[in-house]
Amino acid sequence: MRADGRTPDQLRSISITRGWSKQAEGSALIEFGNTRVLCTASLTAGVPRWLKGEGKGWVTAEYAMLPRATNTRNDRESVKGKIGGRTHEISRLIGRSLRSVIDTRALGENTVVLDCDVLQADGGTRTAAITGAYVALADALAWAKENKLIARTAEPLVDTVAAVSVGIIDGVPMLDLPYVEDVRAETDMNVVVTGSGKFVEVQGTAEGAPFDRAELDALLDLALLGTSELAEIQRRTLAGQ
Amino acid sequence: MRADGRTPDQLRSISITRGWSKQAEGSALIEFGNTRVLCTASLTAGVPRWLKGEGKGWVTAEYAMLPRATNTRNDRESVKGKIGGRTHEISRLIGRSLRSVIDTRALGENTVVLDCDVLQADGGTRTAAITGAYVALADALAWAKENKLIARTAEPLVDTVAAVSVGIIDGVPMLDLPYVEDVRAETDMNVVVTGSGKFVEVQGTAEGAPFDRAELDALLDLALLGTSELAEIQRRTLAGQ
Amino acid sequence: MRADGRTPDQLRSISITRGWSKQAEGSALIEFGNTRVLCTASLTAGVPRWLKGEGKGWVTAEYAMLPRATNTRNDRESVKGKIGGRTHEISRLIGRSLRSVIDTRALGENTVVLDCDVLQADGGTRTAAITGAYVALADALAWAKENKLIARTAEPLVDTVAAVSVGIIDGVPMLDLPYVEDVRAETDMNVVVTGSGKFVEVQGTAEGAPFDRAELDALLDLALLGTSELAEIQRRTLAGQ
Amino acid sequence: MRADGRTPDQLRSISITRGWSKQAEGSALIEFGNTRVLCTASLTAGVPRWLKGEGKGWVTAEYAMLPRATNTRNDRESVKGKIGGRTHEISRLIGRSLRSVIDTRALGENTVVLDCDVLQADGGTRTAAITGAYVALADALAWAKENKLIARTAEPLVDTVAAVSVGIIDGVPMLDLPYVEDVRAETDMNVVVTGSGKFVEVQGTAEGAPFDRAELDALLDLALLGTSELAEIQRRTLAGQ
Amino acid sequence: MRADGRTPDQLRSISITRGWSKQAEGSALIEFGNTRVLCTASLTAGVPRWLKGEGKGWVTAEYAMLPRATNTRNDRESVKGKIGGRTHEISRLIGRSLRSVIDTRALGENTVVLDCDVLQADGGTRTAAITGAYVALADALAWAKENKLIARTAEPLVDTVAAVSVGIIDGVPMLDLPYVEDVRAETDMNVVVTGSGKFVEVQGTAEGAPFDRAELDALLDLALLGTSELAEIQRRTLAGQ
Amino acid sequence: MRADGRTPDQLRSISITRGWSKQAEGSALIEFGNTRVLCTASLTAGVPRWLKGEGKGWVTAEYAMLPRATNTRNDRESVKGKIGGRTHEISRLIGRSLRSVIDTRALGENTVVLDCDVLQADGGTRTAAITGAYVALADALAWAKENKLIARTAEPLVDTVAAVSVGIIDGVPMLDLPYVEDVRAETDMNVVVTGSGKFVEVQGTAEGAPFDRAELDALLDLALLGTSELAEIQRRTLAGQ
Repeated sequence: MRADGRTPDQLRSISITRGWSKQAEGSALIEFGNTRVLCTASLTAGVPRWLKGEGKGWVTAEYAMLPRATNTRNDRESVKGKIGGRTHEISRLIGRSLRSVIDTRALGENTVVLDCDVLQADGGTRTAAITGAYVALADALAWAKENKLIARTAEPLVDTVAAVSVGIIDGVPMLDLPYVEDVRAETDMNVVVTGSGKFVEVQGTAEGAPFDRAELDALLDLALLGTSELAEIQRRTLAGQ
Repeated sequence: MRADGRTPDQLRSISITRGWSKQAEGSALIEFGNTRVLCTASLTAGVPRWLKGEGKGWVTAEYAMLPRATNTRNDRESVKGKIGGRTHEISRLIGRSLRSVIDTRALGENTVVLDCDVLQADGGTRTAAITGAYVALADALAWAKENKLIARTAEPLVDTVAAVSVGIIDGVPMLDLPYVEDVRAETDMNVVVTGSGKFVEVQGTAEGAPFDRAELDALLDLALLGTSELAEIQRRTLAGQ
Repeated sequence: MRADGRTPDQLRSISITRGWSKQAEGSALIEFGNTRVLCTASLTAGVPRWLKGEGKGWVTAEYAMLPRATNTRNDRESVKGKIGGRTHEISRLIGRSLRSVIDTRALGENTVVLDCDVLQADGGTRTAAITGAYVALADALAWAKENKLIARTAEPLVDTVAAVSVGIIDGVPMLDLPYVEDVRAETDMNVVVTGSGKFVEVQGTAEGAPFDRAELDALLDLALLGTSELAEIQRRTLAGQ
Repeated sequence: MRADGRTPDQLRSISITRGWSKQAEGSALIEFGNTRVLCTASLTAGVPRWLKGEGKGWVTAEYAMLPRATNTRNDRESVKGKIGGRTHEISRLIGRSLRSVIDTRALGENTVVLDCDVLQADGGTRTAAITGAYVALADALAWAKENKLIARTAEPLVDTVAAVSVGIIDGVPMLDLPYVEDVRAETDMNVVVTGSGKFVEVQGTAEGAPFDRAELDALLDLALLGTSELAEIQRRTLAGQ
Repeated sequence: MRADGRTPDQLRSISITRGWSKQAEGSALIEFGNTRVLCTASLTAGVPRWLKGEGKGWVTAEYAMLPRATNTRNDRESVKGKIGGRTHEISRLIGRSLRSVIDTRALGENTVVLDCDVLQADGGTRTAAITGAYVALADALAWAKENKLIARTAEPLVDTVAAVSVGIIDGVPMLDLPYVEDVRAETDMNVVVTGSGKFVEVQGTAEGAPFDRAELDALLDLALLGTSELAEIQRRTLAGQ
Repeated sequence: MRADGRTPDQLRSISITRGWSKQAEGSALIEFGNTRVLCTASLTAGVPRWLKGEGKGWVTAEYAMLPRATNTRNDRESVKGKIGGRTHEISRLIGRSLRSVIDTRALGENTVVLDCDVLQADGGTRTAAITGAYVALADALAWAKENKLIARTAEPLVDTVAAVSVGIIDGVPMLDLPYVEDVRAETDMNVVVTGSGKFVEVQGTAEGAPFDRAELDALLDLALLGTSELAEIQRRTLAGQ
């Protein structure tokens, strides 16, 4: 039994509020327990200069955390005048993850910027961000079809994508770690998986002792279980259920 | 009659959700119509080096906007590597406004940082931020008393404070301008007023034609009306009504 | 009686030296007592990209202080690698103030940059900067007419503009505060007024106790008095008297 | 057969020159084919402020690339004034990898900074950097024992560590990718493994199509093979063979 | 005969106004023809951390140019967020030059910052800055004696120092080049010389064709002539003549 | 006799390895004793915007030092977010030196960037950089002829160029100072000379006592001797001897 009453293979309570922002072409406020991330998708005609004339679109992402999303306040990166390594790393991960399910040719010469801003942090912010960004992206693409930026028959989304964290705590593999578990994990892994169950990213790190092949396998099993549940929640959310 | 059906002297629908953040000592999600600002108050023991040993506390504020809070996306200030003049100006205004109702000696050697992050922008973000930051500040101070950082008998808050925008549109003075009115205003004024009806800040700018004394007087009248209503909403919110 | 022998409604000794710089299209070294600001107007054909093709000109301003303009030395903003909030705020104020008396269409597609560098500071640097920048701007526009960048018949300047600080010290409203008064003021206001006596900017701040309507009115009266004298000095300076 | 004549499970020619730098406490110029990285270990007494008094040491790393290490020149990060996300990400990876084989208590209050500068790049720069940094670190620790910064009996190194890239190209899993293969890989993985065959980091990314469990397993097998060979080369190098 | 009527070995009209700034411990507005530099010396007790406890003082300098000091406006370095190479180079040159005539032990643990701000530029700004900074420094040291920061009997200044530019134009060596000559010079040299006629800095650059030993010798002769005249002007200025 | 056994007028052991980098159009690893600088020449078609259409090429240089090139580690300029004055100064010196032997019209609209990265520092890094950059530049120009970016008959190189440091130590003028001599030198001079024996740059600095004309002459004699030997080594290296 875990501190919050879950079994090792259980997700936290997941909530996705579509259209939380009135301004963006697509948006979702996603909650993994107390972790709360606002994902907006900004879709505009045109692509960056280096991609012009190739008939392909572009999807990128930026991740950030409000200064008091965490238990103690962090200085703003805008005030410090530079972006930290962790922020860069996560922004790049989110961008790659979402691009993995995009057919850039079907997207046409349009750009989508996915902004994932953590309003409240309790572990798993990057995986919540990826999972929520997918919903915002899907809605922005639907908007683009209605507004004729993308042809009705084009299908830029080739699959769904979701992510979850897994880790080994006191020798037990566990799914979807909140902050209190994350800091205690010997091994910590973030896994990004498509709706069809294939891997997009596998990022495992030994925080304490290095891990062996059997532990790695157990973590991957848990991650596939968690992401298949998230894919179902995404599907239901987008179906308006 | 205005585009949103209000009379010239009517506020937008105002909503304040106390304790929106589980992490901060005090917090409020404030809405002025579609403008939505998350205000958190981070209270910590100790003061900046330059204030040490004087027996006085410090209150400061930082304002920022999410990149897609607005109708078109703005680049992040963290990515640009510098904070814009507008952001600086508003952060300073919020800080001064809240300090005006603080007895720093009663606060003791504690520091409060007020973070006001605009999640959705539709005009009046700085005035919503000041009004919401007051609620977050009040809750953080209550928390500090419960946690004995401040003596039970101390009263660091000497008054309440709220702010509203006013402007002249097509010759008519109007209260609490949303974005569509703000861009059309000939004169635009932000007024910060205490619960006892005294001015803390008066910032009037001729966007179009310069304004005369009579126009200035009419705007000040409207602002006093609006801030007295906001003070009442703050009072009810903090009373849990 | 004030420390420098003035009555409450008296300006400091004002001096404006036109053409102090041989390089700029227009320039003025302005002195409000010991405050000394070098204002240059750089006029060039063309406008920023975002304004091209609209047949309108652009006026902007940058304010800065030499490191030893003040009683103790401040680090250079170029060395710190970023511009402070106060600098940003004042640059924006000067720009807005001067644009308020410009007919951008009559200016044509020309740009004027007003640089206001404080060589010596003793309170009221922003108001001296606005008052001096007007003279530099007027001379640059005259230069532009002589050099056919602007048609002889065009009249880009629709009015004059000047600024002054006012404040309440020990309960007495006073005009044009030097540094020693500024730090003691309970309320501090900078007012920008056109030659025809209309307000362009009103920025009042309660440094100590909040102020009431009567105090605000008394300060506005003083400010109108001071700016009308400054307008007369500007007029005489430009007339070569 | 690969373009450079290797079989899919074959490493490139590996060369490690110990003590390439006369200045550092430990250093190695490592070559994986045409990839050439200079690794230096700077060992100094003392630890960062946040670690003082805990009786533990600190190991950190910085990765960078010379502007013309690559086929076309890249702007210097010092000239751009900021460090890119990729650089941050790799520096953090190297630091975590080396810390995984360090007993910080046995290291005592000493700090080691590992600088990995890519002099020539042809794929696999981060894995070469980790593998070379281990050699530089081992030599710096030996130096510290000789110079009595660390006790003769202490053993700060608990294992060896090496890294290699693997990828799937045209459906075939391959070991140690040079640049021409890296850009064609559908899936790309960097794996960091200890001398005892346990995982420290597993970072797999689907560059093209997502990958399934069987492909992941094949890549991990190859990586374990490659890193065991690298561990043997490290052992021989440090034994002076 | 030169464009401004001077002979090749003649300085421009030199003017030094002592005490131009009321704020600094020492100051001088120096003019070499139309070049106009404000030099202030800020003297404070104490030295930088790395020099503490050695019983020695520190002298450093910062050079900068107002944006419209030149014929066309340059962007501010504070706005660009970084200092250019030329500015750095000149600041370092001024600092070294003034330190060459300081006995840091006699200065005691005091710091002098020399700010040289070019208000108007017409060639030779760095040499004017050095020559003027000497006067500001001398006055600041006198002030420090009066205020007992330095003992009456101490003599921190061991010599005077001045600088001048020389160059070869159309084959003719010339002294003290204004901008129009500077841009045409084949060789350009800045020479810093003590009152006793010894070299502190010799910086010669072939802008066009490389120069031979004879040309170098002719330039050095001219520079010694010019700096001896400047030393005399400095002496008279400080003697109040 | 010097510490390393040389006579005062003797260069350290000089080594130049052409083509050290497989990536650059021209490259050289140059060693002056233990000083080791990697020089690469990146030649690309086209020129910066401000030079377009003039039929002339551009040559520029960037100098940097690896963090552990020196005896104690220096923070990276990329991490500090800004380039230091010394780095700027040396980059500019190298650029000017190489441009002095280039006929930009014969170079045509091509750009060469010379990167000089100090891998190991033991005094004289800037002079080694200039001397090595010449070899890299010559090779890049030969490459450009082979690849028809420059006409076979064009001769962009009008001379060779090399540099050496000289200094006075304990009253004795000495050639090519290693670090231990450099820190003890009373006067330190860097001299850049063409193959035909003319001066390109003369930069002399009194580190201790100012120097007189006779000392300056002795240093120039030594520098001409040293650079003529370096020119011969460059010639032999490029001739493949």
